[in-house]
Amino acid sequence: MPLIVKVLDILSGKRAIILNKADALSLGIELHDRVKVVHENKTSTALVEITEDPKLVPNGQIGFYKEIATEMGALNGETTEISVAKIPSSVIYIRKKLKGKVLSTEEITSIVQDAVALNLSELETVAFLLAQEFYGMNMDEIEALTKGMLKTGKILELPGRVVDKHSIGGVPGNKVSLLIVPIIASTGLYIPKTSSRAITSPSGTTDTMSVLANVQFSIDEFKTMVMKVGGAIVWGGSLNLAPADDIFIRVEQPLKIDPRSQMLASIMSKKAAEGISYLVLDLPTGKGAKVETMEQANSLATDFIELGRRLGITVKCGITYGGQPIGRAVGPALEAIEALKALEHPDEASKSLVGKSTALAGLLLEITGYARRGEGAGVAMDILKSGKAEKKFREIIDAQGGDPQIKPEEIQVGKYTYQFTTETDGYVTLVDNDIIKNIARAAGAPIEKGSGIVIHAKQGYKVEKGQVLMEIYAERSTKLQEAIAICNNIRPIVVENMLLSTVPEY
Amino acid sequence: MPLIVKVLDILSGKRAIILNKADALSLGIELHDRVKVVHENKTSTALVEITEDPKLVPNGQIGFYKEIATEMGALNGETTEISVAKIPSSVIYIRKKLKGKVLSTEEITSIVQDAVALNLSELETVAFLLAQEFYGMNMDEIEALTKGMLKTGKILELPGRVVDKHSIGGVPGNKVSLLIVPIIASTGLYIPKTSSRAITSPSGTTDTMSVLANVQFSIDEFKTMVMKVGGAIVWGGSLNLAPADDIFIRVEQPLKIDPRSQMLASIMSKKAAEGISYLVLDLPTGKGAKVETMEQANSLATDFIELGRRLGITVKCGITYGGQPIGRAVGPALEAIEALKALEHPDEASKSLVGKSTALAGLLLEITGYARRGEGAGVAMDILKSGKAEKKFREIIDAQGGDPQIKPEEIQVGKYTYQFTTETDGYVTLVDNDIIKNIARAAGAPIEKGSGIVIHAKQGYKVEKGQVLMEIYAERSTKLQEAIAICNNIRPIVVENMLLSTVPEY
Repeated sequence: MPLIVKVLDILSGKRAIILNKADALSLGIELHDRVKVVHENKTSTALVEITEDPKLVPNGQIGFYKEIATEMGALNGETTEISVAKIPSSVIYIRKKLKGKVLSTEEITSIVQDAVALNLSELETVAFLLAQEFYGMNMDEIEALTKGMLKTGKILELPGRVVDKHSIGGVPGNKVSLLIVPIIASTGLYIPKTSSRAITSPSGTTDTMSVLANVQFSIDEFKTMVMKVGGAIVWGGSLNLAPADDIFIRVEQPLKIDPRSQMLASIMSKKAAEGISYLVLDLPTGKGAKVETMEQANSLATDFIELGRRLGITVKCGITYGGQPIGRAVGPALEAIEALKALEHPDEASKSLVGKSTALAGLLLEITGYARRGEGAGVAMDILKSGKAEKKFREIIDAQGGDPQIKPEEIQVGKYTYQFTTETDGYVTLVDNDIIKNIARAAGAPIEKGSGIVIHAKQGYKVEKGQVLMEIYAERSTKLQEAIAICNNIRPIVVENMLLSTVPEY
Repeated sequence: MPLIVKVLDILSGKRAIILNKADALSLGIELHDRVKVVHENKTSTALVEITEDPKLVPNGQIGFYKEIATEMGALNGETTEISVAKIPSSVIYIRKKLKGKVLSTEEITSIVQDAVALNLSELETVAFLLAQEFYGMNMDEIEALTKGMLKTGKILELPGRVVDKHSIGGVPGNKVSLLIVPIIASTGLYIPKTSSRAITSPSGTTDTMSVLANVQFSIDEFKTMVMKVGGAIVWGGSLNLAPADDIFIRVEQPLKIDPRSQMLASIMSKKAAEGISYLVLDLPTGKGAKVETMEQANSLATDFIELGRRLGITVKCGITYGGQPIGRAVGPALEAIEALKALEHPDEASKSLVGKSTALAGLLLEITGYARRGEGAGVAMDILKSGKAEKKFREIIDAQGGDPQIKPEEIQVGKYTYQFTTETDGYVTLVDNDIIKNIARAAGAPIEKGSGIVIHAKQGYKVEKGQVLMEIYAERSTKLQEAIAICNNIRPIVVENMLLSTVPEY
């Protein structure tokens, strides 16, 4: 049955066509079916959507979303033939995984390839991820998934020793990459750091770096910068390294799922695509972090190390304290200021920030043989204190098109502020990661870069009544009010007397 | 931020809006987020889709799919405000079920309500079903799911004793309802039979009945017909009984999942919505059927009976042989002919068809007290042989707007036919349900009503070389060729010598 093409000016994110309901019925085609589309000398498959609206797709016509129209070179009014297509074997493999079966390397590769080629529907994609969430994957499957994701994207090729540091995330204020990258780059190692924008946090490394320089580059520009100054801190999204990840994240996000096998594969495929040989992985552990116990952290570390071994990457995991924010600032501009100040005057900076940065940088220096075992953190600290790291960071800013002379006080922060004070004397017994994140996001971070939080009293600090515990910054007064409302509703920072109760009560 | 409404003439099946990517970015809104939409004095929530195409939705505008435009009464050019909406609690409950937790009645009710109100995305809906597939549900959860599905739809109210028969399906040629409904209706019991169109089979009861009469009615018309002639055989789809089912089926289909808890709730909510007090449930069991072993069938029966008890319905399960087709005909017109002939001349009809029909009808007569225990099938057979069932069936056809005088030979079948013969003498050792279904569908059933199969030799039959095993009917020669191709590729009917092999080999 020949159908007349109607090109719909809609980028749908999938390879799909729309049929009129009456045509679908007479062709025996249902919603979500796949059809073979033959247009002139081209053939492709597409997912079927159905409309009852004759204005959108009239009887006898076929709506081409932009993706398929472009692929087929189809124009309005041309004629196309469709027929029911066989289900791709990748879908059969997804159904197999849904039954709890173990998949072969070929099966997993085929799923990843079809995901990247937009041959899978969102339903099929999420089913694959939920099957991972429920049944898990063994290391052979994870290796296949990682290599499949690696093969379907671009790969950075650099001469010399290439290393990176990555955090599995979950802790607010974690701007350590802005210190680690220049420390490492100033030793002559290449560190092509890619990261994502914040997904659930108030500021990802990319968001913080974007306050100081551009972060969006092509893979060639990225390579040039790294070869010139040794390191760069860019957004991974535009580089097309392991693009399957974006497709998987799009369906994981709304369900707030993060299957362990997919997390391992996502991180390691992105890092392998940077062409690295050494990786230090930060596993923040503690209440409110992604990993809550040392036991979980150790088990995850074992998997990362084994997966690294199969990819030819030496992995060292640093299990770090993730129970409260790193440093004092949370939010893109505030974190950029804190990082820049820490590079300028490490002695005056927050101990958690400097300590964590030099510890992780030190591990990288040790596994690459740049420092002896046990001496890495000291070497990193020396580099930081010598001013070399600051100089290198300004070179990186310059290479990425920012102002290399920028001073911390020139960075703009939100003009609407609020100070949250303690009503009693006592000790800070809790700084709650989740509430801190919610307040900073309510204040506008990471979209509004000047918004966020500065924490003045962290766990264990002795405070007196009326003392400022934290300040909120916002670019808009409405956002400030929203942030304050959360703050007044649930205390993000808890102050308690050492004497918690008496027995008997009085 | 005020946005200008652009009404998109697209029925999307969901409550969704489309934002331009730049606007979404500056609002901090992502794909699949939910927004609160305020338009004049109306407020609603909608799911967010994002376009990069300024022709579809330009900067500063908001695309309203038809559903939300209608609901809000919004017109092109009007102004609307949106803001990020809270996630509905139903989504929180779905995530809870994804973690393997047991849900409360209130939580399940809220999920069903939001599904029916189109407040859930397809991803969220399928996650709910996959969580059921993986973790199952206890009987309290299943009861809540069933009652939730019942409450969100219409309910048929009839005076007197209302009964029904239902099959969990999976066996081709299962036209028994066309015999059972008139047998039961002729006793004075009400039997308001609703069924779906074929999903994976070559003909559902609705498809077969549609050859003889109309099947699409409003709930009031349905009630009037049942009160007039005692029974009716209609399509459930237009009655709005338990409409949540359609929403769930739409996401189950592409993944070929059918979680047991959802199957129980779907069937029982539809049946409870018919207002019945007695139900006979057919559980076809055997290789290639939905239930493969007696143990599984007994366990499923126990659940149906318990769920029925909680809904005030007396359920009796008949475990029937489902290892090969029922009767000889497969496909809407061919099945209608076979059913009509069986009503006219039960002695000449296929024993499996008449036997199964009277057995299940007999169970209904027994549980309602119309027949004594052990005598139901005999009473049903008497009704069939007396001609009362045929007379009643013709009254039902008449009430449903068909020709009550119709003769079997007047029913049109496909004019393209092919006879599949045996190449050896021997015994029929296998009639494969799945292959039979595939061939009949390839021939055009159920869309092309005259297409299908007539089987001439069933399991255990002795056949001679050259004897016709089955005939294929098709309305189009291309479809016939497709069906023949499958047939030649995988034999649907296997003939073997009694002597299968010798030991030693010769």
